[in-house]
This record gives sequence, structure tokens and C-alpha cells, in this order.
Amino acid sequence: MQETGNPFEGPQTKHETQDGVFSAEEVRLANRNSGAMLEMLSLDITPVGGHYLLTHFDVPLIDASSHRLRFEGAFDNPFAMTMDEIRAAPAITRTVTMECAGNGRAGMSPRAYSMPWLYEAVGTAEWTGTPLAPLIEKAGPSNAVVDFSFEGADFGYDKGVPHFFGRSLTPDELEALDVLLVYEMNGQPLLPQHGAPLRIIVPGWYGMASVKWLDRITALTDRYTGFQQVQTYRFRQTSDEVGEPVTAIRVKSLMVPPGVPDWITRKRQLKSGLVRLEGRAWAGATPIDRVEIHIGGDWHTAELAKPLGKYAWRGWSFEWWAEPGHYKLACRATDAEDNVQPLEPEWNLSGFANNAVQQVEVFVTD
Amino acid sequence: MQETGNPFEGPQTKHETQDGVFSAEEVRLANRNSGAMLEMLSLDITPVGGHYLLTHFDVPLIDASSHRLRFEGAFDNPFAMTMDEIRAAPAITRTVTMECAGNGRAGMSPRAYSMPWLYEAVGTAEWTGTPLAPLIEKAGPSNAVVDFSFEGADFGYDKGVPHFFGRSLTPDELEALDVLLVYEMNGQPLLPQHGAPLRIIVPGWYGMASVKWLDRITALTDRYTGFQQVQTYRFRQTSDEVGEPVTAIRVKSLMVPPGVPDWITRKRQLKSGLVRLEGRAWAGATPIDRVEIHIGGDWHTAELAKPLGKYAWRGWSFEWWAEPGHYKLACRATDAEDNVQPLEPEWNLSGFANNAVQQVEVFVTD
Repeated sequence: MQETGNPFEGPQTKHETQDGVFSAEEVRLANRNSGAMLEMLSLDITPVGGHYLLTHFDVPLIDASSHRLRFEGAFDNPFAMTMDEIRAAPAITRTVTMECAGNGRAGMSPRAYSMPWLYEAVGTAEWTGTPLAPLIEKAGPSNAVVDFSFEGADFGYDKGVPHFFGRSLTPDELEALDVLLVYEMNGQPLLPQHGAPLRIIVPGWYGMASVKWLDRITALTDRYTGFQQVQTYRFRQTSDEVGEPVTAIRVKSLMVPPGVPDWITRKRQLKSGLVRLEGRAWAGATPIDRVEIHIGGDWHTAELAKPLGKYAWRGWSFEWWAEPGHYKLACRATDAEDNVQPLEPEWNLSGFANNAVQQVEVFVTD
Repeated sequence: MQETGNPFEGPQTKHETQDGVFSAEEVRLANRNSGAMLEMLSLDITPVGGHYLLTHFDVPLIDASSHRLRFEGAFDNPFAMTMDEIRAAPAITRTVTMECAGNGRAGMSPRAYSMPWLYEAVGTAEWTGTPLAPLIEKAGPSNAVVDFSFEGADFGYDKGVPHFFGRSLTPDELEALDVLLVYEMNGQPLLPQHGAPLRIIVPGWYGMASVKWLDRITALTDRYTGFQQVQTYRFRQTSDEVGEPVTAIRVKSLMVPPGVPDWITRKRQLKSGLVRLEGRAWAGATPIDRVEIHIGGDWHTAELAKPLGKYAWRGWSFEWWAEPGHYKLACRATDAEDNVQPLEPEWNLSGFANNAVQQVEVFVTD
């Protein structure tokens, strides 16, 4: 069936990509999915409509009043909860920086044929909900449970495989992570495109773990084999490799592009003199240790702002006496475990977790 | 200076484009600017974060408490207003469908080198503010006024020309259009990226007229010559032509893609049987007369939903008995002035106002 381009039957067409050249299908994904406007990195909290969005299938529109979260499978006391019951459970709000695992994909060479993020798939929000662990405990998972799966109401095809978007966490991961069942973002009910009425947030991990439109949590005595868990979101060098799962967010930083932009190229113009460079750095649940700014051949140490929280990005700034000229500015973060951003992307087949340093092209005039 | 790619000095590099192939700069714009997810066309009102956004320069972050809207130039009683004063003026809410003038640009051949919209740059919101005309009247424009300019706080370069984003309307246009000074969207204060704290909405016109981050209104006794008024947003066949200005939104319709998607290609799969096709049609301030659906060689008349308001899109639906097969569905609207969507784009140099019919590729299975 390849001649009709039917993506719902295998085997699938293999898409080749060429550096610096993108297809209409990639542009369609870029138009549909929303990236951050980098100047809004100056805000501690990303406004709702400015937060990145990556939606695999269609946004399901769910009636909150009849929605139930079902706890199923190998639980001693499986149950279902209404949204009112979930809202009545103890509520906490966490400031969490979320980044798409595919952020930076278009910077890899060769790049995978998928959503062509450059730098934009990151945002920080205040997520309100109730901790998941006590509810799992209440449902009483059997001792034989090896995975909890989290499945959403969004359904579609990827590589010819029909599935609801779903992910899993092991009991150990669930214990180690502060997973929240979330119904509010920045103090407002979740919007449809952010997972209304209910999603999980897995702080410190790339965004694929934070399942939207959450429908059911299943306790499994065999490993979860959902498409989004085992067939993608893995670090692979070749397609026949099982690969390592993508999990915690790697250390990364971005700069608020200084000065003013050219509309199309997004290159920047600055007046010479004192310029305050600023941006954000993050590393999942690991604290940021330092940020360095690269200007004209030298690395300079930036000043770090007060932390916003364990899982939130950290502000940084650097005062630069800008002399006229043409610059490629860069910023590089190091976390408390001494992980440092690479200068070049660490390649993998699907283009995941590219944390190479960002470059910002700047023209300084008299 | 062309060898450094400095976009801040003329003359500018001419960018050639090739059909179906896009540059990294175009993808950067697509990642940065937000398009609608077409499935959300099923909603009468687009949620804030689902509304399209086209931002020429950087989003300025403005302190609402110190912001002043200045009425300047050839007014007898020029004044400035605080946000509190504007909010104290008579408030109305209008449901307005807004579309980017560049929507559909990537469907033209050859296409202009700019934001590569396919179909996504449209949304409908409830805009709350105060009518502009009484305030203009209060400021007392001189009889010699030929243009009112509206300038925002957003500044940058386009084709080497530095400018604040600005647009103008003639006294006649101002009288004919229900222009609103807007501070709320969907019942909430404007978000930074939608123009906070103040913007105008020019109902029925393409989005470029609805200036965001509104800073000053100037009464002019000579024609306004701002870049965004005279150097772009014009229908031109060649670059040495003055061209006609882009103004009212042309008749157009879009379909909610039926069935379920393939993640990358966005092609659709349906089960055979009864399928409800639905979507939206709009034509600025002109009512929609009819919508037709193209299936397998025939045009069928869709049912129109109740109108949402003079300036809002209109819902349509069609019940289709889908037999197994491979289809390219299309929808075509006609307005009350007998304007009908063309089957092929009407080409112009900058790729404006492409209202050619949308095609949705669907595979129907048993």
C-alpha cells in the first residue's frame, strides 16, 4: 500500500532528511505544535499560551463532569475517581520546567523525520493537583506489579501502529519521582490542549512522561509494552537496537535574544555599550551549578538568580560591555553533578535530548 | 555587508524558495509562531493558547500600571489614558474570527519567503474592550486628518527598515468598522503574547490591522507611510508595484479533520459508515451563504449552524455515509456577496489571503 502513502498500513515509507532543508509535513507539524518565543524566557512563569505544546494525535475534548480516572489491573482495591473527588484530595502546586524530548531535533545531523524543534520546546508552569503516590497506595498494588501504565484519551497511529498515547513508570520510579495528578495550570483549569481535565506531571523528566487527558492507570505484572514506551523515546544509534529509555531532562540553558530582531532571520541588533544578557538554565531535578557565556572566544561566568524551586529553571544574567562587531553568543550550563552542555549535539536516531549550546547571532552597532 | 548576512543594512539578500522544500529560517518562524490545531475548530471559541499567534518582532513586556495610550498629532484635545481609565469606559464584548493575512502562504507557488502557514492561522475569541470611535471623537481630530495611525511597542527590522509595528485606518474606515480597544480575551486579561495590556481589534479584517501592545494613536494630515502599511500587506504581482492594500478577510472554510490521525503525516483514518463532517466558514463581516463538501467527485451542501455573531465564523456539518476507499475531502464556502473560495490559490507576491479550498486526505476502512 505504499503507493497510496497510506500511513495506517505497514511497512512504512522511510523518510530521508537533508540538513537545512525541511518538508511540508515537517512544517505542518511545526505550525500545529507551539514553541516558546525565546524573549519570554525573561518571565519566571510561562503564560499558558506561551508554553510549548507537542500533541501526538488530536486533542480530545473531554466532558469533565463525566470523566473518571480508573485505577485498573493488579490492584487489590481498584476504583475510579471523579474530577470532584480528585479536586477534594490534598492539593499542592509545583513550579516545573518541562521540555520536549525532541527539543533540538532539527539541530542534529542527520535529523529524524519528525517535529523539527530548534530550541523552542520548553516552558515553566505552576501545576496544581494532588500527589499520585497516596492514591496508588490506596488502590493497593499487588507485590507482583512491575509497571504502572498511564494512558490518555488521545488515539492515533505512529509507524502504522494504532494506540492510545501511554507511558509507564516502575514502582521504584514512582517512589522516587514527585508525580502529580494535575487539573490546574498557572491557577486556571487546564485548557483542552494542555490535557483537560486531568493529566500527570512527572517533574524532572522530559515531557513525554507527563501524559495528558489521563484516562486510566493500570497496575501491570508484566512490563508495559505501549508504543510510546518501547518503540519511541529511546536513545538508539540504529533502528534495530532496543536502546535506553529517555527519562530525566539533561542540563541545558537558553538565552533571551538581546537587542531587537530582524523579522525573518531572527538575527539581533544591539547598540554598543552595557548590555544585560539573561536567560534560563535547567537540569531536571538536579540543581544548576553554573552558567557560562561565550563572547568573542572567551567564556564568562554568569550570575545565577534565586532558585524558583527544585524542578524549575534558574535565571541567569551577565553584564556585557558590547563593542561594535558581529558575534555569535552562546550560553552553557553545568549542573551539580558536573554534567555540562556539549558544544555539539550528541547524536541519536530519533533526535532526542539535544542539549548542545544555543547560538545567538548578534550585530552590535555604534 | 551581504557577506555577513547582516539583515540590518540594505540591500537585502533576495530569498528564493522552492515548492515543498523549506529552510531552517522558515521552520524557526513556524516553531515560534503558533497555529491552530485543526481539530479545535470544533469549538465555537478558541481557547487562548489555541488561538493563532503571529508576532513580527519580540513580545514587549509592558507594565500595565504605568502604561498610557496617547492620542497625538492633529487632534484638538490630545490626551493620554491609563488602563484604569480605559477599563472604566463603556465595555462591550465581541466574538471575532481573526485570520492572519499570510495564512495559506505555503500553498502558493512560488511562495514568499516568510512564515510558512498552511491552514492554521485562524481563531475565534471573545474580545472585551471599549469602542474606539467615541474616544477618537473626544480627542477632536482636525478636519484635515486623512489617516489615524496605530503604533505598538514592538520594534524591529524588516527588509533593513527599523520600525515600530504600526498600521493606519482612514476616517471613513474608522467610521465603517467596529474597532475596539481591547484589554480582555475570553474573559481574562490579555496575555503578553496577545498584546497586553492593550490592543485594537479590527473586526472583519485580516489580523495585521489588529495592532497589539498599542502605545499611540496619531491623527495625521498626510498619509501614514509606516512599513507595515505601505511596504507589506499589499497585493502585488511584482516587487516594483505599489499594489492594493490587504483589508477584509476573504471567504474561507476549514474542516475538522475526521477520524484519527497518523502522527507525522496528519492523514486520517476512518471506519466506514456514518461520519459527521464538520468545520467552520467565515468571510470577515460578510455572512456565509453556503458551504459545500467535495467527496469523490461530487459537491454536497452542508448544513449551517446558528451564527455566533456578525464577525464570527459559522459552524457547518455534513453527514457522510463513508464507503471504504481513499479520499481527498474538501470544503468550499460562498458568502452573501457571492464570493466563492477558489479551487486553486490566487497568487500574489507575498502570499497573502490564500482562500483556496482545503484538502483533507482520508483512508476509510471496513
